[in-house]
Amino acid sequence: MEPNTDDKPNSGRFHTQTFAKADVKRREKLLATALAQFAEKGFSATSVNDIARGAGISIGALYSYFPSKDDLYLTVVEQGRALLEEALGDIDAAAPFFASYETLVRRARDYALANPELNRIYLDATTHGLRHLSRRLSGSLETITAEMYRKILAAAIERGEVRAGTDTGADAFCLDSIMVLFQFSFASDYYQERLRIFLGLSGDEPIDEEALIASITNFVRRALAPSGACP
Amino acid sequence: MEPNTDDKPNSGRFHTQTFAKADVKRREKLLATALAQFAEKGFSATSVNDIARGAGISIGALYSYFPSKDDLYLTVVEQGRALLEEALGDIDAAAPFFASYETLVRRARDYALANPELNRIYLDATTHGLRHLSRRLSGSLETITAEMYRKILAAAIERGEVRAGTDTGADAFCLDSIMVLFQFSFASDYYQERLRIFLGLSGDEPIDEEALIASITNFVRRALAPSGACP
Repeated sequence: MEPNTDDKPNSGRFHTQTFAKADVKRREKLLATALAQFAEKGFSATSVNDIARGAGISIGALYSYFPSKDDLYLTVVEQGRALLEEALGDIDAAAPFFASYETLVRRARDYALANPELNRIYLDATTHGLRHLSRRLSGSLETITAEMYRKILAAAIERGEVRAGTDTGADAFCLDSIMVLFQFSFASDYYQERLRIFLGLSGDEPIDEEALIASITNFVRRALAPSGACP
Repeated sequence: MEPNTDDKPNSGRFHTQTFAKADVKRREKLLATALAQFAEKGFSATSVNDIARGAGISIGALYSYFPSKDDLYLTVVEQGRALLEEALGDIDAAAPFFASYETLVRRARDYALANPELNRIYLDATTHGLRHLSRRLSGSLETITAEMYRKILAAAIERGEVRAGTDTGADAFCLDSIMVLFQFSFASDYYQERLRIFLGLSGDEPIDEEALIASITNFVRRALAPSGACP
């Protein structure tokens, strides 16, 4: 077994050379099975034996691909991160800031609806059961978003669209916190119910998503607009 | 076994009469053991047998107190909810709104630091593994907060401190989302690392909590202040 033997030491890959050389269909089936099981049961309750069985490979083969359950999990998360990076990648720092934020809010919902399993893994990744991987998981998943905010906020301040603050990091934290819990509202039954309670919806009354997105964008616009442009 | 046989049908109690009549020390030890194990391992990975063993009672005795693992879990959550309600209970709707929000942000952090186990359970409660209890958990934990915001926002709008909005529910959702992820930053290694990334902190550079609380309160003040009073 040769763990983490990729050419680039920080490439974020946790599999072995043996896995890299395996048949593509076999690799895809294993990762899809691992994604489904980690998402369904959470990391702690998922058994590596069950994943191997589900993927139709021996436990020996699985360990020749991934030195540990952690490595397999981090590989699955890495796939989700790549998808997220792709989804955020074309946000243009030159575009009007508040329109971009609204686009991001919409994409966050769409990503949650299109990738429920990745969102379940994201939620599970924040729990105490995964604390031994917290720093690596957060570093991998949050850095893309934080850098994206830094870039578009700096450009918007330069253009005078967003007031010049002394605390861009804290502002980005607020923007992203609203976005994250909005996204989770479409990925988790708990947060879906929380959103309904906050909106005062009873029974099966539907959520007016367009009105909510407009309200969130307005909240953020008022918080960040320069004094002069304050609505 | 007589489950849920309390006088008040919606009292939120999930234990049996047998438990209500058991020795107080025995009850406390069982609930403390359950809290510790659910918080440490998460609901799914926690075994009822292990809880009984940890509390020094037989599995038969445990099932005579709680008809199911769900009931035991909901009882533990209910204790946390009662603590949270106590912490929020004395927020005065007549007090200045933004000062109250700052107080809440501070209390959210203090609650997270003082009750790490309850916060770990809160995080776990939002995951897919607990989806069969999501509605009850969210209904129990989120309603107190949502009602508190409704009350203090209505009073602040009445006084002209907060602009009259058409969407108080969405505003409360934004206020609470910032607060929740701030709180989780002191309860979960994942969110602690996320906060550090957003603030651009490297290595062991400490978080300036006072500056962060001030920035969050200012963000919220700008978002909600009436046009005339806009900073």
